[in-house]
Amino acid sequence: MYLEKINSPKDVKKLNIEELEKLAEEVRKALMNRLSKIGGHFGPNFGMVEAIIAMHYVFESPEDKFVFDVSHQTYTHKMLTGRKNGYLYEENFKDVSGYTNPEESEHDFFNVGHTSTSISLASGLAKARDLKEDKENIIAVIGDGSLGGGEAFEGLNYVGSELDSNFIVVVNDNQQSIAENHGGIYKNLQELRDTNGNAKTNLFKSFGLDYIYQSEGNSIQKMIETFEQVKNIDHPIVVHINTQKGKGYKLAEDNKEAWHWCMPFDETTGKTTVDFGDDYDYDTLTADYLLDKMKKDKTVVAVTPAMPETIGFNIEKRKQAGKQFVDVGIAEEQAVALISGIAKNGGKAILGTNSTFIQRTYDQISQDLCINNNPATIVLNYTSVAGLNDVTHLGIFTISAFSHIPNLVMLAPTNKDEYISMLDWSIEQRKHPVMILMPGNGIIDYGRIADKDYSNINKYKVEEQGEKVAILALGDFYQIGEEVSKIVKEKLGFTPTLINPRYVTGIDKELLESLKDKHKLVITLEDGILDGGFGSNIASYYGDSNIKVKNYGLKKEFIDRYDVEEILKENRLTPNQIVEDIKNII
Amino acid sequence: MYLEKINSPKDVKKLNIEELEKLAEEVRKALMNRLSKIGGHFGPNFGMVEAIIAMHYVFESPEDKFVFDVSHQTYTHKMLTGRKNGYLYEENFKDVSGYTNPEESEHDFFNVGHTSTSISLASGLAKARDLKEDKENIIAVIGDGSLGGGEAFEGLNYVGSELDSNFIVVVNDNQQSIAENHGGIYKNLQELRDTNGNAKTNLFKSFGLDYIYQSEGNSIQKMIETFEQVKNIDHPIVVHINTQKGKGYKLAEDNKEAWHWCMPFDETTGKTTVDFGDDYDYDTLTADYLLDKMKKDKTVVAVTPAMPETIGFNIEKRKQAGKQFVDVGIAEEQAVALISGIAKNGGKAILGTNSTFIQRTYDQISQDLCINNNPATIVLNYTSVAGLNDVTHLGIFTISAFSHIPNLVMLAPTNKDEYISMLDWSIEQRKHPVMILMPGNGIIDYGRIADKDYSNINKYKVEEQGEKVAILALGDFYQIGEEVSKIVKEKLGFTPTLINPRYVTGIDKELLESLKDKHKLVITLEDGILDGGFGSNIASYYGDSNIKVKNYGLKKEFIDRYDVEEILKENRLTPNQIVEDIKNII
Repeated sequence: MYLEKINSPKDVKKLNIEELEKLAEEVRKALMNRLSKIGGHFGPNFGMVEAIIAMHYVFESPEDKFVFDVSHQTYTHKMLTGRKNGYLYEENFKDVSGYTNPEESEHDFFNVGHTSTSISLASGLAKARDLKEDKENIIAVIGDGSLGGGEAFEGLNYVGSELDSNFIVVVNDNQQSIAENHGGIYKNLQELRDTNGNAKTNLFKSFGLDYIYQSEGNSIQKMIETFEQVKNIDHPIVVHINTQKGKGYKLAEDNKEAWHWCMPFDETTGKTTVDFGDDYDYDTLTADYLLDKMKKDKTVVAVTPAMPETIGFNIEKRKQAGKQFVDVGIAEEQAVALISGIAKNGGKAILGTNSTFIQRTYDQISQDLCINNNPATIVLNYTSVAGLNDVTHLGIFTISAFSHIPNLVMLAPTNKDEYISMLDWSIEQRKHPVMILMPGNGIIDYGRIADKDYSNINKYKVEEQGEKVAILALGDFYQIGEEVSKIVKEKLGFTPTLINPRYVTGIDKELLESLKDKHKLVITLEDGILDGGFGSNIASYYGDSNIKVKNYGLKKEFIDRYDVEEILKENRLTPNQIVEDIKNII
Repeated sequence: MYLEKINSPKDVKKLNIEELEKLAEEVRKALMNRLSKIGGHFGPNFGMVEAIIAMHYVFESPEDKFVFDVSHQTYTHKMLTGRKNGYLYEENFKDVSGYTNPEESEHDFFNVGHTSTSISLASGLAKARDLKEDKENIIAVIGDGSLGGGEAFEGLNYVGSELDSNFIVVVNDNQQSIAENHGGIYKNLQELRDTNGNAKTNLFKSFGLDYIYQSEGNSIQKMIETFEQVKNIDHPIVVHINTQKGKGYKLAEDNKEAWHWCMPFDETTGKTTVDFGDDYDYDTLTADYLLDKMKKDKTVVAVTPAMPETIGFNIEKRKQAGKQFVDVGIAEEQAVALISGIAKNGGKAILGTNSTFIQRTYDQISQDLCINNNPATIVLNYTSVAGLNDVTHLGIFTISAFSHIPNLVMLAPTNKDEYISMLDWSIEQRKHPVMILMPGNGIIDYGRIADKDYSNINKYKVEEQGEKVAILALGDFYQIGEEVSKIVKEKLGFTPTLINPRYVTGIDKELLESLKDKHKLVITLEDGILDGGFGSNIASYYGDSNIKVKNYGLKKEFIDRYDVEEILKENRLTPNQIVEDIKNII
C-alpha cells in the first residue's frame, strides 16, 4: 500500500505516474472508509483526488502555499500531509476536522468554511511574500460554484492588476455548485470548456489575468504537466481545470446534488445508515407551506443563495415552484438586495438560508433592506447551538450580529405552529423587514393554535402568570424555561412567571414595568452568545431598578466540534443549574 | 429659463435637442449654485448631466424605474423630477438629501448611499415586475468605480442568466473611482473604450449580458439615440457609456480626486470657503505615523478599500509609501481578507476606512480574520455620532455590529497620544486582530504620555479613584465623563470614580468586582447605540448584584441629517442631564 507510507508531500514526489495512480485509488478507498462511516463532503473530495496529488507532486508545500476555497475538498491534501490516519482508521477520525486547520498542520494556512475567500486570502500571503522579497508559489484553489460570490470576484479583480508577481488560481470546474450553478459566468465557463479554453470572451482575461485550460482534471499525468507549466510563473494566472464531481463512485457521479455532502451510508446501496425518524423538520415544513402559498399568490417568491434545502426545496419542489423559486447561486449579497427590490415592487419575497451564511450580508440587511424598510422575510436555519458545530459554521452569533439593526423585526418562534404563524404574518404584512429564526430543537407541536397577528411589535406573551421570578425564555430555549418553571414549582414552592418574548429586537416596556410589582428576579434564556444578546438589553433596561437580572446564554467564543450537552452545562444552561442559581439569588 | 419650467419628466420631453442642451447648461449652473454654497458630490453630478437628461427624455419615469448606484450622482435626476428648487434657491437646499430618497419623490425607489448595490436592487424590481407580468423598463446606473464591489459582480452574474426579460445596466465609465481605479477589470474597460466596444474579451459578455458602447456619454443627442435603441428591450443589456467626471468645470476635470466631493468653495478660485483651523486631524496623524513606520520596516503595509483619505494618504503620501500602500478599490471584503493573509505570512497590515463601509465585511472579519486570529489592524474613522450624518453613512452602529465577534480586540482611544500608542502596539503585536475607533471629537492632547502596552487585554484604566458612582466613559465620550465628574464634585459634593475602559470587547471583571465595595451606581457612556453596546454587557455583568447600572448611548434608530447637539440632548447625553439622573438614582 502506498498511502500507508506517505508521511509528507516528499513521499509523494518519490512515486512514478503508475504508482501515483495506485495512490489515487487508495485515497478514494480511504475517503470511502471515512465518509461511509461518519459522513462529510463527498463529491468535492472524490473529484479532486488527482489534482491534489499533482499539486503536491509539483509544488513544495508548505513553502509553496495552497489556500483551498471552503476547504471542504481537502481530504486528499490532508492525507498527503501527515494526516492519513484520520481517513484510514476509525479511531483517528476525530483527529482531523472537515476543513483546513492551521492547528492540525503547517500545510494548512487558514480555518476556512465559508465560500469565495481563497483568492483574497491567498492574495494576502502573496503581498506579504513580495514585501519580504521571498519567492514561493502561492496557489488558490476555488470551485466554479464558489466563484459566484462577491469576495471571489473582488479577489480576481485585485490579483488581475495589483499583483505583479507569482500567483496561481486553480479554478476547479465540476459544473456544479451544491445544487446546480446559477449565474451568467457559467455560460462563459461552458464556452471555455467547449472550445478548449478558446472562447470569444473570457471571464478571467476580462479580470486582467493570464489563463490556461486543462480539460483532463482527473488525469494525474495531465495535471502534473499543467502545474509544471505554471510553477514559478512571474505573474498571476488562472488554471481552469475540468473535473468530475464525485468521480469514482457511480451514485455520486449521477446525482451530484445529493452527494455533495453525505450522512453515513452503505457503500453498496448508497443508502444512509442513520435513522432520522419521520424526517419531517422545519425545512420540509417551510417548503410545503410556501408551495401552497405560491399556488394561491403568484407574487410569492422564495429566494436562496445556493441553499435550497434549508427551506426544503429539493429538486422536485423547485420544479413545482417554477419562476417562484430563485436560486441566485452562492451570492448572499445579491439575495438580500433582490428580496428588498422584490418587496419594493410589490412582491412577497422570502429568503431562506443557513444562519452562518447570512453573516455575509450585514451591510445589505442594514442598507439595502432595513433603511428602506421593505417588507421582505428572511428565514434562517441552524440558528441554534444545537445546529452545525464546526467553528466556521456556528449559528450562535445570529442575534448579536443582526438584532441591533434598526427597523428589523427579528422573531424567535418556540414551536411549530408559532413558526408557521409568524412566517405567514411576515409574508402578508407590508411594513417591516423580518428575520425569523427556525427553532433548533426539533418540531415541537403543542397542539394549540398560535397567535396569527404579530403586528403589535415587541409585545411579549405571558404564558403563565406567577410571582417572584420571571423567566423570559426566547425562541427554542423556551422549553428550557418550561423545565425551569416546573422545577421551581416543585422544589422552591412557588410559580414563576413564564414569558415567551417572541420579538428579539425590542423591549416590551409595559410588561417589563409591570413585572416590577411582584418579582425580584428576571432571568433571560437565549440560544446564542450573551454579548450583545437579547438578555443584555433586558439587563440594561432594569439596570437602575431594584429588579435583579440574570442572563443565560453562551460565552462569546469560537467553539469547534463540541458536544451540545457539554456546552450547555459549561454555560450553566441546564434547568437544574438555573434553578440552583435562582435559589441562590432570591 | 427652461429649468424653472421643469416640474416633472413630462416637461423634459417637450424640449428639442437645442433646448435640452440649454437645459443642461442651466442644470450645471444650479449644481454650481448648491455645491459652491454647501458642498456635496461634485464630480459625479457634473459628469452625468447629459445622460440623466436623456434618460428622462427617453424613458417614462416613474413607471420605468431608475436605480442609481450610491445615488450621489442624482442631483440632475432630482432637478428633473420636481425638486429643482433644492438646487436653485438657498432656502430650499434642505428640502433634498444628497442621495435618492423615496420619501422625497415617487421617482426614487431606494435610500442608497453605499456602493455596488444598484444592479442587485434593480434586479429585485425586475423580478417582481415579471411575477406580476408587468412590462416597464428597469434601469440600473452604476459607475466604473462601484463596479469593483462584490455585490455588483453578484448582481451582474444574476442578471446575466437568471432574468429573461427587460433589464438595462448603464455603466457610467468616467475612468475614476473616488481616487483612481484599481483592479483588473479597468484594463478591460479601457480596451473596450479604445476599441469602441470591440475588445477581444468583454467583461459584461463574460457575465452573460448583451452589450453596447457609447463613447459620447456627454452628448444628449447620442445618449438619446442610445437609450432609444435599448428601450423596451426583451433581455438584459449593458449600456457602457464614456463620460467625463466633473465635466464643465475646468478645475474638477483636471483634478478628479479632489473634486469627487467638495466643501463650500469659491467658484472662481475653487478654494474652499470654510476655515478648518490648522486642519490637522486623525487622518493626517495616522498617515504621518504610518509613513515613518514604513520607512523603518518594509513589512508594514497600509490597505484601503478606496478610502485613502480616511487614513490621510493623499496622492503625495501614497507615492511616498510605494508598494507599502495598497488601494484595492471599492472592495471591502477583499481588503479584510488581504490583511488577514498578509498578517498570516508575517506582514504588518493596517486597513483604514470609514466605519460605515466596514459593515460590508462582517463575515470577513469573523471568518477570514478572527477565527484565524491573525494579527492585523483595522482603523476606522467616522465612528462617532459627530461623524457623517446621512442615514446611509452613520458610524453609531460600529460597536453593536463588531464588538461581539470573538477574538477581536476593539480599542476605543480617548485622545491623540492614546490613539497613536494603541495603533503602534497593535501593529507590533502578533496575537490579536485589532479594530481601533478613531476618536470623533477632534485632536485632544493631554500633553502626557499614554500607556504603550495594551497586551493585558480588557484591563480598564482608573483615571481617578472616587466613591459612590463609577463612570465608565468609553472612547471619545471620555471627555463627557470628565465633565460629569467635574459637575458631580461641584454639585453633589463627592468625587466619583472615573474609568477609561479602553477595551470595547471585554469586561475587566477584577475591576468591576472591586467597584462593588464603595460604589452604588455605575454609569457607562459610549458613542454608539445602546442595543448591543458596551454598556449593556456591563449591565448584564452587574445584573444579579446590588450595583445599579445606567447605560448612556444612542437609541437604536436610523437618523438622518441630524443636529449632533440635539441628538445628544434627546438621548440625555449632556453632562448636566447625566448628573441630574445620578442625583435621582443615588
